[in-house]
Amino acid sequence: MKSAIEELEAKGRAAKAASRRMAYLTTEVKNRALHNISEDLLTKQDEILAANQIDYKKAEASGMNAAMLDRLMLNSSRLQSMAQDVLAVAALPDPVGVIFDMRTLPNGLQIGRKRVPLGVIGAIYESRPNVTIDISVLCLKSGNAIILRGGKEAIHSNSALAKIVQEAATRAGMPDGAVQFIGTDRALVNHLLTMRDIIDLIIPRGGAELIRFVKERATMPVVAGGIGVCHTYVDRSADINKAVAIAFNAKVQRPTVCNALDTLLVHSDVAEHCLPLVAAEWAKVGVEMHCDERSLAILKPNPSLKLVPASDDDWGKEFLSLVAAVKVVDSLDEALEHIERYGSGHSEAIITEDYGAAMRFLNEVDAACVYANASTRFTDGGQFGLGAEVGISTQKFHARGPLGLKELTSYKWVIFGSGQVRS
Amino acid sequence: MKSAIEELEAKGRAAKAASRRMAYLTTEVKNRALHNISEDLLTKQDEILAANQIDYKKAEASGMNAAMLDRLMLNSSRLQSMAQDVLAVAALPDPVGVIFDMRTLPNGLQIGRKRVPLGVIGAIYESRPNVTIDISVLCLKSGNAIILRGGKEAIHSNSALAKIVQEAATRAGMPDGAVQFIGTDRALVNHLLTMRDIIDLIIPRGGAELIRFVKERATMPVVAGGIGVCHTYVDRSADINKAVAIAFNAKVQRPTVCNALDTLLVHSDVAEHCLPLVAAEWAKVGVEMHCDERSLAILKPNPSLKLVPASDDDWGKEFLSLVAAVKVVDSLDEALEHIERYGSGHSEAIITEDYGAAMRFLNEVDAACVYANASTRFTDGGQFGLGAEVGISTQKFHARGPLGLKELTSYKWVIFGSGQVRS
Repeated sequence: MKSAIEELEAKGRAAKAASRRMAYLTTEVKNRALHNISEDLLTKQDEILAANQIDYKKAEASGMNAAMLDRLMLNSSRLQSMAQDVLAVAALPDPVGVIFDMRTLPNGLQIGRKRVPLGVIGAIYESRPNVTIDISVLCLKSGNAIILRGGKEAIHSNSALAKIVQEAATRAGMPDGAVQFIGTDRALVNHLLTMRDIIDLIIPRGGAELIRFVKERATMPVVAGGIGVCHTYVDRSADINKAVAIAFNAKVQRPTVCNALDTLLVHSDVAEHCLPLVAAEWAKVGVEMHCDERSLAILKPNPSLKLVPASDDDWGKEFLSLVAAVKVVDSLDEALEHIERYGSGHSEAIITEDYGAAMRFLNEVDAACVYANASTRFTDGGQFGLGAEVGISTQKFHARGPLGLKELTSYKWVIFGSGQVRS
Repeated sequence: MKSAIEELEAKGRAAKAASRRMAYLTTEVKNRALHNISEDLLTKQDEILAANQIDYKKAEASGMNAAMLDRLMLNSSRLQSMAQDVLAVAALPDPVGVIFDMRTLPNGLQIGRKRVPLGVIGAIYESRPNVTIDISVLCLKSGNAIILRGGKEAIHSNSALAKIVQEAATRAGMPDGAVQFIGTDRALVNHLLTMRDIIDLIIPRGGAELIRFVKERATMPVVAGGIGVCHTYVDRSADINKAVAIAFNAKVQRPTVCNALDTLLVHSDVAEHCLPLVAAEWAKVGVEMHCDERSLAILKPNPSLKLVPASDDDWGKEFLSLVAAVKVVDSLDEALEHIERYGSGHSEAIITEDYGAAMRFLNEVDAACVYANASTRFTDGGQFGLGAEVGISTQKFHARGPLGLKELTSYKWVIFGSGQVRS
């Protein structure tokens, strides 16, 4: 093990050294690297798919379930789609080098902030091999060196993809060492998380357990996609048509993701009108409703609905499936209190035609994304116009909500003087 | 101890509850609180000075040294100056509520980022009692609740000042619980550093040991004033008059602070001309020079200079006194390598009339503040036009360099819809 740790440290030092030069690469070089990656994903697809087959067969033999196997599998059309996504990132503006807040002080000093890469980013991720490409591309475009540590099940696929990224980057003129790929030993991850002098940021991508593990152990900053417990509150002044359409979209359009609706709160003045309409739409796709007493009284008996009395556990739960908790509230204040208590600070929405209620909700709810009259499903880097994202942050420090290229950068103060001294 | 921990947790919950309301206080209320504090520092000076006398006498009796005693002491003129500083913060623009990056998406969603407070800030600081006021005022102005934990030596002074802040804030209409003051037990600090669900940011203010302790133990984000190992590089194309003036200012104007010059690097082409001039200026105030072999050969023998052969320890050392390390280098590259190896990422300067050399230095040096032709002593929130600062960050995550009011905030995404759903 000692030599593996030493090798990891050597890779870390190489990444750090590369990161110094990457900080001032031109956008041209970075985009060339991305174009090379996109090309190589297609021209080298035989190698990639052969490596993926090794992982796939091993996983199949070990009894991996169908959903996981599907996530692990690469094929020609998936590689084409990955190649397209890389070009989309290449087309985004380069955040690095942008100078902002520039001004001239009374003493003549010209001072501003210049956007720079964070340095070295460590990525720890689970089975989907396309994350190797996704995260490498976002890091390279933002001028960061990267240390990749993928899951054991995808080791051959990830290794083949990382090799493509390394070769493509070097061919474009990026410094050697910019992309490092490390083994899957648990001891290596543990050591990686102590390398605070080398690694400026750790990004865990995967399930709640991986994220918790990384957050607890990491000695450097971590940004992690948070848990999304998302509420939609239908106010007494809601346009019920909008409410029904939004509740349907937020719950149903893609129920397995963090920005999907978990709890529907409905004002008691409109609950008898609104709830049966929402329930009828949800019933078309089989949404199971975990209802408080009042909503249950409104909706049942109705054999076409899947109704379950809510338990205490249902409030603040991220369902990630076609299940929603439903509760009747008597006021905006009660809705705000419920969200404050049970929300995870991800995405929260109010449906209302009352200006004051909308403004209070947007002001008072403490979450990464607060909506008036729209589906929480919009919380996404692509939808927000950031182009791509490495995740959605529910923390307040550094960056909140969708994390795009800019959120992988820092800044430095640049000062142009002409001999000034401080008096 | 159990009850003290419980009391701490209750204070934490109270601060958290207050922080929810503080997020949308008007600027008027926040400024009124600051004006109240400023007034009360003067009208209640008898109480404050009486409390301070208890600390002072105890410290004196325990044999505290004169410099520390001076830091601990309050008097009427110091209180007046503190009261003035509070008004200066009140006069700064409120960072909270500013909406930026606002735009309308093709689907009609209006989306932007709105600046919000971080939430609850924990401050752990050492003996100077004015930090109680400084940090409270910056936190309150930026809409954050605060938990104050000062040093044992200043407990009576800090307690009296915290009480003034609490009363002044409540009188202005801020929620109860916005300002919490806790005891000095080590066990309490240890527990405080685990309260990640309550505290959004910890700010340690004090010596290197305190900062290290907090960074190692804290389970939430920390911003700490970093160690400043600051280089000034005199290029072969430097204007030697500027170089001499800047080297003098950077070393001498206030040698005990983190942005003072530690190492002077001089290009060999100009070393014989420049070094004796710098040394003659420095000699006037008794600067001790720790010289590499080549600079020593240029400067000695000269009985008016304090010359010491440099040891390996001198490179990368923060002297915080009238001592400077001096080294002759043969190129800009050698200077850049030296700074990369020994700098702490705080403030670095080049003195040159060569455009290309200046641009390379500003681009390639990885530090919070990079200067061409100016003294590193300018690294300061006030000097940079931020009005006030809670410290100078040498980390890249969240904020870098002087930390002003804006750096005590985060943002949330606000989305104004009219019924949009995601397709």
